[in-house]
Amino acid sequence: MYSISFLGPKGTFSHEAASIVGENLVPYCTIPAVMESIDNDECLYGVVPIENSIEGPVGITLDQLAHKYDLKIFGEVIIPINQNLIVNPGTKMEDIEDVYSHAQAIAQCQEYIRNHKIQPHYSISTAKAAKSIIGEKSKAAICNKKVVELYGLEILESNIQDMDNNETRFVVLSKESHEMTGKDKTSIIFSIYEDRPGSLYHILGIFEKNNINLTKIESRPSKEGLGKYLFFVDFNGHIDDALVKNILNEIEENTYFFKVLGSYPEF
Amino acid sequence: MYSISFLGPKGTFSHEAASIVGENLVPYCTIPAVMESIDNDECLYGVVPIENSIEGPVGITLDQLAHKYDLKIFGEVIIPINQNLIVNPGTKMEDIEDVYSHAQAIAQCQEYIRNHKIQPHYSISTAKAAKSIIGEKSKAAICNKKVVELYGLEILESNIQDMDNNETRFVVLSKESHEMTGKDKTSIIFSIYEDRPGSLYHILGIFEKNNINLTKIESRPSKEGLGKYLFFVDFNGHIDDALVKNILNEIEENTYFFKVLGSYPEF
Repeated sequence: MYSISFLGPKGTFSHEAASIVGENLVPYCTIPAVMESIDNDECLYGVVPIENSIEGPVGITLDQLAHKYDLKIFGEVIIPINQNLIVNPGTKMEDIEDVYSHAQAIAQCQEYIRNHKIQPHYSISTAKAAKSIIGEKSKAAICNKKVVELYGLEILESNIQDMDNNETRFVVLSKESHEMTGKDKTSIIFSIYEDRPGSLYHILGIFEKNNINLTKIESRPSKEGLGKYLFFVDFNGHIDDALVKNILNEIEENTYFFKVLGSYPEF
Repeated sequence: MYSISFLGPKGTFSHEAASIVGENLVPYCTIPAVMESIDNDECLYGVVPIENSIEGPVGITLDQLAHKYDLKIFGEVIIPINQNLIVNPGTKMEDIEDVYSHAQAIAQCQEYIRNHKIQPHYSISTAKAAKSIIGEKSKAAICNKKVVELYGLEILESNIQDMDNNETRFVVLSKESHEMTGKDKTSIIFSIYEDRPGSLYHILGIFEKNNINLTKIESRPSKEGLGKYLFFVDFNGHIDDALVKNILNEIEENTYFFKVLGSYPEF
């Protein structure tokens, strides 16, 4: 049976997302390690976060897909992110001096942390944060509720994130794209010629004239200097469709860098 | 004499950028605190990072300008970011087990950290990281060279960042925009109507038909759900120019959210 790698350790939101994709889940400790596990055939699929509705893109995922690994997006999973304040059994709010979590979870709960006058500290993952507070009464962690069972901790308060609409999109990576289903999305990356003003406008015009709907447009620095960007665009359609093929050819002819990340069924 | 606030503590890249802007510099410990110091008239100007050529936008700066403070961009400063591995006097590379720095500096030196098999740890700032390693032989920090004098440490290796072209753009904030100089930039934020396909294309068309050159287009999540973005756009021109005024009026009429962040001389 094939294996599915995910960004571990167990008890993270990535673990929750991977559980939706399938069984036989194998945790890896970094996003590049998940990608490497597919590239070297240890796993057939891998699940990594790609964007959060509050914090934005997961830079390392986009950068590695753009510059390092030739993997395809085979699917997507979107899960709501509910952050919880996790403590040792019996700890009350007034006991807490320090709170530990992944930088993105800390960022998602900034207002809550400020209002409760507790000191934030960064950890490698939300699950590592939970592990680090075991037995420490003045410490709390911000995590997925899954860790409570794993480490014998308890939830002091649920849904402590600053804003509603907090959800994370994960992508399922593989060596191949998914076959056409009729309700598909395609993800591409491109960068425009800096010396041609209006380049981005003309690229978007290719979608416009073909009535193709963009579901996402996101910029990332191309790492070649300020003001130079890679654009990550998702749109409705599959690369095996003739119209989509023509559009992609036209974009490739008009861009400096171009890469198809894959076609896959919409979640 | 007026004061200039900056993202402290002393010895950070923000300190270096603020030194270019003027004298009478006052460190504040967070980006929102720098903005607050201008809003409540403690300082006339404030200097905060807004984007890095490798890591991308500084989310908290963009978010606070979009959603919280009605401050104007009065100027910009761009400085090259050279990261240094800083140690206690006499420490050699083989002594180092742990390295401390701000998350963005750690991200900028990922390859270097991996290659040297040292364990990264996050600190609130590069300068705090330097302070935390004083007297600890197995620890190093990644920082600006300014901290070496401040804390009696020494540089073990310079320019350890993974990529060249590493520069950070800082903005000088104030309550007023800068007057027109003839070589100006204007920064705006807008969000498009989600139910009108091609909205971004039409907004970019307004610049295109007026031959206005965009120097930056960056997306950020609008925090209203996946696929909904705020766009941060910089272009050549000043808001007191009649053509620019007309363009901004037309954009405002066609966007769901619109805010002018200010006009200021190009660096």
